Amino acid sequence: MLKINEHYLKLQASYLFSDIAKRVAAFQHAHPDKNIIRLGIGDVTKALPPACIAAFHRAVDEMAVDSSFRGYGPEQGYAFLREAIAQHDFQARGAEISADEIFISDGAKCDTGNIQELFSSEARVAIPDPVYPVYLDTNVMAGRTGAFADGRYQGLVYLDSTAENNYVPKLPNEPVDLIYLCFPNNPTGSTISKAELKTWVDYAKANKALILFDAAYEAFIRDESLPHSIYEIEGAREVAIEFRSYSKSAGFTGTRCAYTVIPKECAAYDSAGNKQFIHPLWNRRHCTKFNGVSYPVQRAAEAVYSDEGKAQCKALISGYLENADLIAAAVKELSFDYIGAANAPYVWIRCKRDSWEFFDMLLNKAGVVCTPGAGFGKCGQGYIRLSAFNSRENVVKALERIRQALA
Amino acid sequence: MLKINEHYLKLQASYLFSDIAKRVAAFQHAHPDKNIIRLGIGDVTKALPPACIAAFHRAVDEMAVDSSFRGYGPEQGYAFLREAIAQHDFQARGAEISADEIFISDGAKCDTGNIQELFSSEARVAIPDPVYPVYLDTNVMAGRTGAFADGRYQGLVYLDSTAENNYVPKLPNEPVDLIYLCFPNNPTGSTISKAELKTWVDYAKANKALILFDAAYEAFIRDESLPHSIYEIEGAREVAIEFRSYSKSAGFTGTRCAYTVIPKECAAYDSAGNKQFIHPLWNRRHCTKFNGVSYPVQRAAEAVYSDEGKAQCKALISGYLENADLIAAAVKELSFDYIGAANAPYVWIRCKRDSWEFFDMLLNKAGVVCTPGAGFGKCGQGYIRLSAFNSRENVVKALERIRQALA
Repeated sequence: MLKINEHYLKLQASYLFSDIAKRVAAFQHAHPDKNIIRLGIGDVTKALPPACIAAFHRAVDEMAVDSSFRGYGPEQGYAFLREAIAQHDFQARGAEISADEIFISDGAKCDTGNIQELFSSEARVAIPDPVYPVYLDTNVMAGRTGAFADGRYQGLVYLDSTAENNYVPKLPNEPVDLIYLCFPNNPTGSTISKAELKTWVDYAKANKALILFDAAYEAFIRDESLPHSIYEIEGAREVAIEFRSYSKSAGFTGTRCAYTVIPKECAAYDSAGNKQFIHPLWNRRHCTKFNGVSYPVQRAAEAVYSDEGKAQCKALISGYLENADLIAAAVKELSFDYIGAANAPYVWIRCKRDSWEFFDMLLNKAGVVCTPGAGFGKCGQGYIRLSAFNSRENVVKALERIRQALA
Repeated sequence: MLKINEHYLKLQASYLFSDIAKRVAAFQHAHPDKNIIRLGIGDVTKALPPACIAAFHRAVDEMAVDSSFRGYGPEQGYAFLREAIAQHDFQARGAEISADEIFISDGAKCDTGNIQELFSSEARVAIPDPVYPVYLDTNVMAGRTGAFADGRYQGLVYLDSTAENNYVPKLPNEPVDLIYLCFPNNPTGSTISKAELKTWVDYAKANKALILFDAAYEAFIRDESLPHSIYEIEGAREVAIEFRSYSKSAGFTGTRCAYTVIPKECAAYDSAGNKQFIHPLWNRRHCTKFNGVSYPVQRAAEAVYSDEGKAQCKALISGYLENADLIAAAVKELSFDYIGAANAPYVWIRCKRDSWEFFDMLLNKAGVVCTPGAGFGKCGQGYIRLSAFNSRENVVKALERIRQALA
């Protein structure tokens, strides 16, 4: 008799965004004439940069002719893309990362979800609260937690991110092995300084722990003093893996391309206490369970690093950041406390009531979709997240509707 | 101290095809002027069908304009593709599969690798020998095996596929829970009849086991009596998951699109013995660890089902099958025993000596890359696989060189 992986049965209800989608669909069904504006899920709305489109087309044309057709590519990604990344995203900022430390994938969701497979099921995991649900759910599936009780999974160390610590969690009081961090943060939009990030790197070194650093939103940083990469911090190469994505920086949510950086020195340990480097383990996983990203998509991603591509991505990001500024200004005017917007496409708003209640109110009275903070964890209760990913016109209209709904 | 998943340390050397690539690179480095012909890895060489190219371009153009731009799609895949699959690949053949039982992914390698996560780490796994290494390695990583000894992982049930059983394994003598089957077979090219497949479905029903049926090569079937899908067999909906891919049927190895079918009735059990349906478990995994396939790629795959697309794919397949016929004829002429070619792009050849020795001989004397059978398992020792995936010209040239090398 085949038994299932019973850890799946511990998972709470459905995945946050599916849940939201269902409520929105029900509302739309009941009010087919209502024009709903979505500031919920962090999904981009503007077209791909023209440089990416041109490169995409050129690569599709290559696939149309036997002599230039490409079959299986390297599982780790093509050298042209890995080299462009190493040069532009890291070396140009003084972070020593080489092309062969970069693994191209079809999404940071996949990579942040899959990375935990490399580690012992006994690993003590520290996860921020509020948090992107993928970090949490994938560790539940892998059996690193107990049951769900009182709004939290037993056996995990939650890192509270609240107004009291300016939404940057403090070091844990108990020893942990695997630490998830995300800055600029999803969902709060908060940022971490180099000095604060250094305390985490030092903690990881002292405790032989590993930091999983999600930098999917680094392109939104405007404050020049903030780190774009954890590898700007001394010592991070030994204790940190970094995740990046073109989803938000170049509008690739529907095109699918991302990458993960695993420096050669980065290590964990076997049960005899011997150092085991993570790079060959991930390489083995990548080669065994993945077959590389679509060739034309990798060419489209490469174009992000051309002069036109850089300028076009910058303009995209600026547009979203201006939306974030408008949202922040409106929220302030309505006397809500908030964080984010300055260096992130998200505004995290203390809504002075239950998150889902506020979500339903905004949906029903304003026809605006937000993300209920409670969906990101216990510390998110009483908050909602508004996303800047929409057209200027829609953002302005949504803010006007929110003003009226709250009047 | 973070510990690794030590099951990874049980994995043998490097992944088969990386291993081959290294030997070929070393040979090419030593003989930079030699023109090597690759009949090793099953990678297609002919351009994408024009219908797919046209659809691909159109979808890229949609991504260039805000009003038609698509961000995150459904994790399970777009309805336009799932519906085309249900209709053309299943319902048209009398197999009752609906669109919402189909999950689009970026590769059958990923799906066949990831599916085991849904099941208990105690599951008793039956794996054919010879076999596509992904089935094996992913179960090793998940801890369902003991150490590697004498050419095999302890704790697995190996299903010998040899000349004695015409390369279709017999039912196991001991109870198993999870059964991997692949027909037309990779690497042997052997096929299974409906009557034989029915014995496996009946076994699975009687033992509450599950069949993971890899049908990546179904498009190569010429014998009308053979099943294209396991769902052509009565009762299979309750006990079988099927994997399909556009890699070989439409030349998508570098474009990346595949799908997995999980019928609603398909179930495993929890430790209390209660039936647990697999569809919602896989849906949860897909939504948590995957973000859908690139939109333009899904449009390119949809075009496979247009009238032009069907005709073009058929022509592609016919070209490769004619190559397979040429290889089979040459091999027969050289007095080797073989199977395959008739309904598959592979020819499995008994080479009368050590597989890797024959591999090295073919590489060095003929400049031809094959795949050593031993890389697919113990039963593959003494065999090599030749693939029909190359241009006619290269296949003819390779066969001539092999004739001379063996003369």
